[in-house]
Amino acid sequence: GVLGSGDFARSLAVRLVCSGFKVVVGSRNPKRKASLFPAAAEVTFQAEAVKKADVIFVAIFREHYSTLCDLADVLVGKILVDVSNNTEINHHKESNAEYLASLFPACTVVKAFNVVSAWTLQSGARDGNKQVLICSNNQEAKRTVAEIARVMGFTPVDMGCMSSACEIENIPLRLLPAWKIPIFLALGLFLCFFTYNLIRQVIHPYIREQKNKLYKIPIEVVNTTLPCVSYVMLSLVYLPGVLAACSQLYYGTKYRRFPDWLDQWLQHRKQIGLLSFFCAALHAVYSLCLPMRRSHRYLLIDTAVKQAVEKKMTIWVEEEVWRMEIYISVGIIALGLLSLLAITSLPSIANSLNWREFSFIQ
Amino acid sequence: GVLGSGDFARSLAVRLVCSGFKVVVGSRNPKRKASLFPAAAEVTFQAEAVKKADVIFVAIFREHYSTLCDLADVLVGKILVDVSNNTEINHHKESNAEYLASLFPACTVVKAFNVVSAWTLQSGARDGNKQVLICSNNQEAKRTVAEIARVMGFTPVDMGCMSSACEIENIPLRLLPAWKIPIFLALGLFLCFFTYNLIRQVIHPYIREQKNKLYKIPIEVVNTTLPCVSYVMLSLVYLPGVLAACSQLYYGTKYRRFPDWLDQWLQHRKQIGLLSFFCAALHAVYSLCLPMRRSHRYLLIDTAVKQAVEKKMTIWVEEEVWRMEIYISVGIIALGLLSLLAITSLPSIANSLNWREFSFIQ
Amino acid sequence: GVLGSGDFARSLAVRLVCSGFKVVVGSRNPKRKASLFPAAAEVTFQAEAVKKADVIFVAIFREHYSTLCDLADVLVGKILVDVSNNTEINHHKESNAEYLASLFPACTVVKAFNVVSAWTLQSGARDGNKQVLICSNNQEAKRTVAEIARVMGFTPVDMGCMSSACEIENIPLRLLPAWKIPIFLALGLFLCFFTYNLIRQVIHPYIREQKNKLYKIPIEVVNTTLPCVSYVMLSLVYLPGVLAACSQLYYGTKYRRFPDWLDQWLQHRKQIGLLSFFCAALHAVYSLCLPMRRSHRYLLIDTAVKQAVEKKMTIWVEEEVWRMEIYISVGIIALGLLSLLAITSLPSIANSLNWREFSFIQ
Repeated sequence: GVLGSGDFARSLAVRLVCSGFKVVVGSRNPKRKASLFPAAAEVTFQAEAVKKADVIFVAIFREHYSTLCDLADVLVGKILVDVSNNTEINHHKESNAEYLASLFPACTVVKAFNVVSAWTLQSGARDGNKQVLICSNNQEAKRTVAEIARVMGFTPVDMGCMSSACEIENIPLRLLPAWKIPIFLALGLFLCFFTYNLIRQVIHPYIREQKNKLYKIPIEVVNTTLPCVSYVMLSLVYLPGVLAACSQLYYGTKYRRFPDWLDQWLQHRKQIGLLSFFCAALHAVYSLCLPMRRSHRYLLIDTAVKQAVEKKMTIWVEEEVWRMEIYISVGIIALGLLSLLAITSLPSIANSLNWREFSFIQ
Repeated sequence: GVLGSGDFARSLAVRLVCSGFKVVVGSRNPKRKASLFPAAAEVTFQAEAVKKADVIFVAIFREHYSTLCDLADVLVGKILVDVSNNTEINHHKESNAEYLASLFPACTVVKAFNVVSAWTLQSGARDGNKQVLICSNNQEAKRTVAEIARVMGFTPVDMGCMSSACEIENIPLRLLPAWKIPIFLALGLFLCFFTYNLIRQVIHPYIREQKNKLYKIPIEVVNTTLPCVSYVMLSLVYLPGVLAACSQLYYGTKYRRFPDWLDQWLQHRKQIGLLSFFCAALHAVYSLCLPMRRSHRYLLIDTAVKQAVEKKMTIWVEEEVWRMEIYISVGIIALGLLSLLAITSLPSIANSLNWREFSFIQ
Repeated sequence: GVLGSGDFARSLAVRLVCSGFKVVVGSRNPKRKASLFPAAAEVTFQAEAVKKADVIFVAIFREHYSTLCDLADVLVGKILVDVSNNTEINHHKESNAEYLASLFPACTVVKAFNVVSAWTLQSGARDGNKQVLICSNNQEAKRTVAEIARVMGFTPVDMGCMSSACEIENIPLRLLPAWKIPIFLALGLFLCFFTYNLIRQVIHPYIREQKNKLYKIPIEVVNTTLPCVSYVMLSLVYLPGVLAACSQLYYGTKYRRFPDWLDQWLQHRKQIGLLSFFCAALHAVYSLCLPMRRSHRYLLIDTAVKQAVEKKMTIWVEEEVWRMEIYISVGIIALGLLSLLAITSLPSIANSLNWREFSFIQ
């Protein structure tokens, strides 16, 4: 059974019909709404629909839950599936599912399908996350809804009892919250260093010697900026650990809470580290591209021609040769080690490591 | 208990004995077959074996299930584990496990271990997929078989009730079905563009100017072909979404099924996108290798020598310098963004993103 | 309830209080120890604490389990959570949890939280593995403890019945056991080939022709060493399979156990293969860096100048051009294929492939 006639209710009905379920839709105005639903779904009055179904999807806004109170008698003993979402994180004091359960104490309420969009429901779980998070205080009802989700092509995930409902309802509203600060940090650092390098490598020679070095902006200036950003970000990964240790030594206890800013910082270390790796990898690619540039070719030929004309035979500078050799090999080793760190941050790899192995690699 | 004496039955017996279980094998000719099984497994007549065991693995072909009907009396109340596979997808109308359950209504049938090969069973789950998919209508029986799988070193995965049996039986027959069309598409596009570039870069100069440019085939021609393939594939990822939206606008509803070809296309987008990324990555590596080639070196020296002999000092072409700088930096940024897409396609990353985050990145 | 006042007990109490649980700590000397625990946790005598709590975390060393025997009467019917670890793998004959269960047959013992460090407990599951492995013979108790773990921010994983306790207790002691032999093998091979290449490329020219080629050590010598290591490692991945097949043909059976050394070798193939891929990838990066070196630039200019002075116009050697083109393109293809192998070794990808697909790719 599906209660409601919105976008989600219709997608749900389409998907349930396609998965071979017998669907009955409850509406206040079944005649007008019938055309919106697939022909195989029976559209009838709410009370009728509830009587015919054992599992009822409540696809109504939280604000209208109370309108269902007339149905309280026929709902007794049924499984109500709360699929609702909020528009803001922690909008209401108690989760929608808990609110529904408090309105209908004689029903078994299950929270599910809210992490799935109407589009995914309608078109089938094609790509992205196929998980449907389910929670309920009743094991049997949870198992029934999990089975329905599986038949519909999703992967049910047991999230325990009703107290998880609030967490589940917040999930669809999340937009990479842990990445916001690190990304703005990286952008800020990039801008600072870029300006500095631009002045040093392009504007200064132009003003002092009237040399036009504008062609350096897209690659060379960016390439000298990236490792600076990467270094600073990498140090910001390890700094909070040192500060935390100092704070513990100072207060003489491990059990005192860190101040909020340090706590926040400690929690963003993984993201800062990954952005540092990203900058380092970009720096590697940019550096590898240097000999492909037309300007590199011209400068090389230019030097050769000058040497030939002046009949100067050797230009070998041992110190410069060594500097470059060491710079490149240290760079490769550093990138290799950072890659290892990045790989162990993949969820499936991290889950296969125990704490000792994880610390060892980090 | 194990019924059967084929390859799978023997591997199963070996593994169960190694995992510390007491194994009894039921055979029609125990004397002749005993030598095939490990010494620790007792080989006896079928009826005997069934009496002694609580969990019975039915390692017989579906065609011979009916021969077990004589044992119906002793089988009452036992757990039968169906490990069988078919030779074709959806070969029979009902799954083997459901057929077995219909023959022995007094038994509890569990579908399991069919996704595991005899070789994996015998040598232990070393690499690759260690999951054993289990389904049954009886929770208790499912839990028992899951426990056995865990002790044998596999990871049991609960696939719900018996209706999943058909899906589980089809899994081992699958061979990357979603990849076939995209791979042939990529190969076809590669061939077309390769022929065009071959004619343009090698055959045409040879016919018109008698210049031998054959050395360009392995790297330069391939390198100009790859980004063409990548571009076309990338556009094929986004095109069906546009077509789907147009179709929805035209028919004025989101709830009409798309035509089959569009549906198929929409389902293959992820694979087409990954192949597009693969071509782009190969193009990057090929481009980076260009300055390593002997021919690059010779052409460079040649130009330098010519210039020196003619005493021409400057060859700097500002436009060409800028074109290359911009080409390279746009290329790097495009590759970086495609990498991000590719990383979010990893199952473990996709499962940690909600729908909003996934759409945002895509 | 928490019994014990060590580091782990305190972290556990902090975390439980932060997650909103009512915590009572049992200690032999509650007055002295109270200051160690958060103010919200009630610290009292052991018998008192046990009476007030339904779920009791036993955060005591195995050696002191017997001291709890005085509490046997009050412990009847409670859930005891064994969080202990050993200092050596398989230190005791039976696992700590099974030992605890044998001491208190009237309690339900659950093994959990031992894979979590005191630091993770205290600071919350921020990065790395968030899984808490749980096993018990009692489904209901397991579910209760799983719920507690979930509320604390961990991901509970059901590991079946008590017989898994021993395996769970060994996990935190593991330090990448499967990687030790392959890494030493790779280091050994690297040293051998490095010495050989050092003698050939640096020492020999120095002794014979007094040429100083020391600058080649950091990049060129390493770069010629890496593919040798990679090749030998790759052959070591496929060799044991061949040996195993030969052994099976020789003995005429698939069901004979392989000798121990072959078994070990077969089990390390994945790690050897990944190290082979790592060396190949490093070789690719080193090779791409070759044209960036100062020495490369000097040698190029040097040749150009010599040619110009001697007025020699063409230096094109068709054979050398072709050798390099083919070498590079075969290298890229080989690296592409190895990458595919490496990607399918990621746990989340491997789990989405069936046996047939995995073998096909390998």
